[in-house]
Amino acid sequence: MTKSKTVIYNANLITMDDENKVIDNGYLVFVDGLIHALGTGVPEMDENTDSLDANGGLVTPGLINCHTHAPMSLFRGLGDDEPDRLQRYIFPLEEKYVSPEFVRTGTALSCVEMLLGGTTCFADMYFFEEEVAATASELGIRVLAGQTLMNRTAPDAATIEDAFTRAINFCEDWSLDDLVTPCLAPHAPYSLDTKQLKHVKNVANDLGVKIQMHVAESQFEMQHLQKINQPSSIKYLDSIGLLDNQFLAAHCIHLDRNDIELLAERKCGVSHNPIANTKGAHGTCPLFELLQEEVEVGLGTDSAMSGNSLDLFRQMSLTAPLQRLRKNDRTVLVARDIFRMATIGGAKALGMGEQTGSLEVGKWSDVVIFDAESIRHTPLHDPYATLVYSLQASDVKDVFVGGRRVVKEKKITLADSDLIRKQGVNFIADW
Amino acid sequence: MTKSKTVIYNANLITMDDENKVIDNGYLVFVDGLIHALGTGVPEMDENTDSLDANGGLVTPGLINCHTHAPMSLFRGLGDDEPDRLQRYIFPLEEKYVSPEFVRTGTALSCVEMLLGGTTCFADMYFFEEEVAATASELGIRVLAGQTLMNRTAPDAATIEDAFTRAINFCEDWSLDDLVTPCLAPHAPYSLDTKQLKHVKNVANDLGVKIQMHVAESQFEMQHLQKINQPSSIKYLDSIGLLDNQFLAAHCIHLDRNDIELLAERKCGVSHNPIANTKGAHGTCPLFELLQEEVEVGLGTDSAMSGNSLDLFRQMSLTAPLQRLRKNDRTVLVARDIFRMATIGGAKALGMGEQTGSLEVGKWSDVVIFDAESIRHTPLHDPYATLVYSLQASDVKDVFVGGRRVVKEKKITLADSDLIRKQGVNFIADW
Repeated sequence: MTKSKTVIYNANLITMDDENKVIDNGYLVFVDGLIHALGTGVPEMDENTDSLDANGGLVTPGLINCHTHAPMSLFRGLGDDEPDRLQRYIFPLEEKYVSPEFVRTGTALSCVEMLLGGTTCFADMYFFEEEVAATASELGIRVLAGQTLMNRTAPDAATIEDAFTRAINFCEDWSLDDLVTPCLAPHAPYSLDTKQLKHVKNVANDLGVKIQMHVAESQFEMQHLQKINQPSSIKYLDSIGLLDNQFLAAHCIHLDRNDIELLAERKCGVSHNPIANTKGAHGTCPLFELLQEEVEVGLGTDSAMSGNSLDLFRQMSLTAPLQRLRKNDRTVLVARDIFRMATIGGAKALGMGEQTGSLEVGKWSDVVIFDAESIRHTPLHDPYATLVYSLQASDVKDVFVGGRRVVKEKKITLADSDLIRKQGVNFIADW
Repeated sequence: MTKSKTVIYNANLITMDDENKVIDNGYLVFVDGLIHALGTGVPEMDENTDSLDANGGLVTPGLINCHTHAPMSLFRGLGDDEPDRLQRYIFPLEEKYVSPEFVRTGTALSCVEMLLGGTTCFADMYFFEEEVAATASELGIRVLAGQTLMNRTAPDAATIEDAFTRAINFCEDWSLDDLVTPCLAPHAPYSLDTKQLKHVKNVANDLGVKIQMHVAESQFEMQHLQKINQPSSIKYLDSIGLLDNQFLAAHCIHLDRNDIELLAERKCGVSHNPIANTKGAHGTCPLFELLQEEVEVGLGTDSAMSGNSLDLFRQMSLTAPLQRLRKNDRTVLVARDIFRMATIGGAKALGMGEQTGSLEVGKWSDVVIFDAESIRHTPLHDPYATLVYSLQASDVKDVFVGGRRVVKEKKITLADSDLIRKQGVNFIADW
C-alpha cells in the first residue's frame, strides 16, 4: 500500500532549479504527490514513510517529450525512406487504419516506451485524442493532448466542422483531469485556411486551452506560404493572432532572424525534434539562436514513424552535435543546456513550468531514478554529460509521476506491458 | 558444459550475405566456433546439441566497432565542451594518468559495454596495447589492436624509437591469438614525420600487419599539411606508400573527389565515426560519395571521451540523418546500407570480411540475438529500420563470439561486470 510520505535517499540530485543545484548524497521527500522537501543526507522517517535507496545514482526531474503522435508507434519503421512521405504515404495509411482501437493500442505501446525511458509528460497531436488521453491516464503519464484540426477528411472527422465539434467536446470532457491537459492541434499552416486558423484561436480562447501546431517544418509548407503571399510561417501566424504564450510550435526549422524575435516576444514554446528533422532531410532548427533569444525550447521525438523511437536520450545526444556542425564550434550548447531542454525547458514550453520540470518544493513529484549499476553510468565525471551523452532509456530504473511509482525496477506498474506489446503485434498481424 | 553443436532456432535471421537474405522462422547451427548451417525451420538436434529459442527475435551478425580507444572509458564525460581539446586537454590528461592498470581497467569497462551492446569485434588504438589485447581476450571479444606510434613522449614510450620497439614486440607476441589481431597505429599525419611514416609502412610489411590511423579529421591536421606543402592527407599518405588494402583510415572528414577515388583505388578501409565528428564540430564525412565509389566503410564510436558511449546503435541512428542533411534528400542511405556498415562493411574495412560480418556457412559464429520482448522491437514492419533506428544496446539479449556465449540474457559470462564497474569507480576516486 502506498504510504502518505515517500523518501528517496542516497541520491545524486540534479534539481534543474534556477541555480542548477546538484546535491550529492541527497534526499527528496514527497507528500500527496508534491515535493515536500529536499536536501543533503537522510531525513527523518517513520512507519508512514515509504523509503527508497537510490544507490548513489542520478535522480532527476521527469523528462518532457514536447512533440509526438503516440498512436503512430503502430507504424514504427514504415516508409522510412519514402520521398514526399506525408501526402503520398502517411495520409493514405492513416485513412486506411486509424480507428479508436488503433489509437488505444498504439498509444499504450508509446506510453510504455516513454515511461520506461523516464518521460513523465508528453505533448501529443492526433485523431481520436480522447483515446490518447484515456490511455495515458490509465498508464499514469501526463499528457498535453491536442485534438487534430485540418481542412480535409480525417479518420475521426468527415469535415472541419465535425473536427471542431470533436475538439470542443474533447477539451470540455477532459478539462478537470489530473494528468491530462486537453488542447487544440491545428495540423499545420497549410492544412487550414486563414479563417479557420482564426477560428481555432477564438475557440481556444473561449475554452482557455493551448494550441500546438507543426510550424516551419517542410519545403511543402514554405511553398504553400509563397502561394498565399506570406513571408514566413511565423509572420503569417502572428499576423492572424495565433502567437502568444499559449502557443506551442513544433519543429521551427525554417526561421529567419525576425521569426526568432517574434517567437521570443510572443513567449511561444517551441519543440525541437532533431532526429525526425534530420532523418526527413527537412533541415536543422536554428536552436542556438532561439536559446540566445531566450525562447523556451523543449525536445520532442515526433512519432515513432518519423523518429522510430520515443527516446529522449537519443534526441539529447544529437542536439548539440547538430548545432556544433552549424556553428563550426565545439563549445556551443553545453550538456547542461541540453538537459535543461529535456526537463524544465520543456515544461515551460508546455506551460507547465510552475508545476513540473525541476526538483523544487511544491512541484509535482515527477522524478526519475537512474540505475547506478549501469556501465554507462560509470565513471561519473560530469552528471550532465552522463545524462545527455552516455545514458539510454534502459538506464532508467524508477519513475514517479505525481508521487505515484509508475515504473518500478524497469517495469511499468499500472498495466501489463507484455499484454500491451502482444496487442500491438496482433493489431498489425493482418496488414 | 559447452556441447559440440549449438542450434539457435525460431529466429528472424538477418544474414547480411551478398543477397541480403532474411530468413523468417530460421535456424543457425554452429560447430567448433564456425557457422555450420542455416535455413528455415528447426534442424535435427541430439543430446550433443545446445539449443536456444530466439523467440522470434532478430538474429544478426555481431556488430563491428571500427574505431575506438577502449581504455579511455575512464575519461568518459571529461572536457566535453573544451576547445582545442586534443593538445591542451587530452594529451596532458594521458600523461598524468595512463598506466598499464589504467589501460586494463578502462578496457574492461569498454569491453563490457561493447559486448552488452552486441559488438563482437573492435578496432583499437592506444598505449600499452598489450593490456587491451589481454583484456579483450579475457572477456571474449575480438580486437584489431593497434599499438600507437607518435613523435612525442607517450605514456608507454619516451621516444619514437622506444615506441617502434614496443610495437614490434607487441605484434610478435600476439601474432597467433584467436581473438587478437595486432597491428600498428601511427597516430595521425601530423604526429610523425614523413621518414617515420615510411618506416611504419616498412615495419608493417615486414610483420605482415595492418596499419590504422586518424586521417583527415581536424582543422589542426589540415593546417599541418599546408605547412608541409601537401595538398591533402590522403594524397600525402598515398605519395609515401601507406595506402593499400592493409590501411584503415579513421574519420576521413576532409576529403575531395580525388581523395575519395584514391581510397577506392587503393582499397583502403574507412571508419566513419559520426557522433564524435559532429560533437567535436569537425564536420561530416562525405560518406554518401565514399559508398558510391564502393569504398569499404564501417562505423566507429571513437573513445568514450569523444563519443561518450561505445554504442553502435547510436552511431547507426545518426548516420543517414547526417547524410540526408548534406544531400537534402530523405531517400539516400536506406537502413540496410547502414546496417551493412555496422556488420559486413566493418568486417571488410578491418580485413576480416572472409571470417565475420555476415551469417554464412564457414564464417566465425559471431552472432547477436535481440530481445523480441523489447517494446522497441514492436511492431516489426522492417527489420533493418528496427535495427538501425529503434533498437538500443540494451535490446541485445545474447551474444556469441566464435561460438562462445559471451553474453547470456543481458549479462556477460566470462567476468564479473559488477567488479569491473567497481574497479572503474575506484580507479578514478582520487583524481
